[in-house]
Amino acid sequence: MVHHPKDHKGSWSSVFQNDRPIRLEIGCGKGKFLLELANLHPELNFVGVEKFESVLVRAVEKAEVDPPANLKFLWLDAEELPECFGADEVDLIYLNFSDPWPKSKQKKRRLTHPLFLARYASFLKSSGRIRMKTDNFGLFMDSMVWFVESDWHLETILLDLHAEQHVENVETEFETRFVAMGRSIYYLSAVRPEETHA
Amino acid sequence: MVHHPKDHKGSWSSVFQNDRPIRLEIGCGKGKFLLELANLHPELNFVGVEKFESVLVRAVEKAEVDPPANLKFLWLDAEELPECFGADEVDLIYLNFSDPWPKSKQKKRRLTHPLFLARYASFLKSSGRIRMKTDNFGLFMDSMVWFVESDWHLETILLDLHAEQHVENVETEFETRFVAMGRSIYYLSAVRPEETHA
Repeated sequence: MVHHPKDHKGSWSSVFQNDRPIRLEIGCGKGKFLLELANLHPELNFVGVEKFESVLVRAVEKAEVDPPANLKFLWLDAEELPECFGADEVDLIYLNFSDPWPKSKQKKRRLTHPLFLARYASFLKSSGRIRMKTDNFGLFMDSMVWFVESDWHLETILLDLHAEQHVENVETEFETRFVAMGRSIYYLSAVRPEETHA
Repeated sequence: MVHHPKDHKGSWSSVFQNDRPIRLEIGCGKGKFLLELANLHPELNFVGVEKFESVLVRAVEKAEVDPPANLKFLWLDAEELPECFGADEVDLIYLNFSDPWPKSKQKKRRLTHPLFLARYASFLKSSGRIRMKTDNFGLFMDSMVWFVESDWHLETILLDLHAEQHVENVETEFETRFVAMGRSIYYLSAVRPEETHA
């Protein structure tokens, strides 16, 4: 757990004590996904971001059993990420089963809203990516439109992630349940636009 | 009406007697869309391609009243297009309300199937585009996936074309009817991949 993330803006390599690429999961929930990834990929660093303290506590407890050095958690609202990470500091962002905020007034809260995409672009590397998984088709469609509107490049779209022979798909808690229920998981990967830093 | 289109492969500028950009509509039906466009854009050349002679006859009759010099029709199966147009000869392709071929065995017949996208890339200019309109959501979703799989760049996705303030949207016969019925028209624009010519 990193308690004052804004103090480390631009210097996350000293937090991790190495220069390995940093990947974020925004809305990491209880942390199963990141914990598995961090153990699978010691050559990468991972940061889990979660807005709800009660949920994050569970993630931290889980990780404490055998804490991987390449995994940190932040208790933070995603809107504040640009205050925590500097230009080109993050390699990749995972958005897994983000809240769909279905009412039209709430769309600005969705983590793929153009306002958020602009925030992410401020600290994602050139050719940095967002990988998104969701079971919510409305969110998925709107997200595709927003990525394209915001000049991101859609490099992969899968309408049924689990029908693909993906070598490595680490499942989230939600995902395992949804797939057991026979629901399709939609997946996309989008690359940051070239021109972003003002 | 051009009767032996394969004879003109690589030399369409002599058919039109000018070097203006050439745009195709594949599946032009009775030709309303192209006839309107050809009159709006004398600075461009248009070719309407239609597989069904009975339908094409209606297009030709309509155009004969006051034939625009920048509009030609071909009675042709889209599979044969690479035999009619040479590398970089076409600027843009319109696919308007193409047959959705809903059965999975028929998907290869869809005009946005990867097999067709590879054919189009053989004669589309670098940075040439496909603009697609459809009311069929299944076709639209599959097409997005196919464009991305085939390394095309999705530059625009609209889930309700008629809700947008598009300065210039020439309606097809189908479109006018669908919109009157309150149905959404899906629209996309995709740019040819850089690497295509083998």
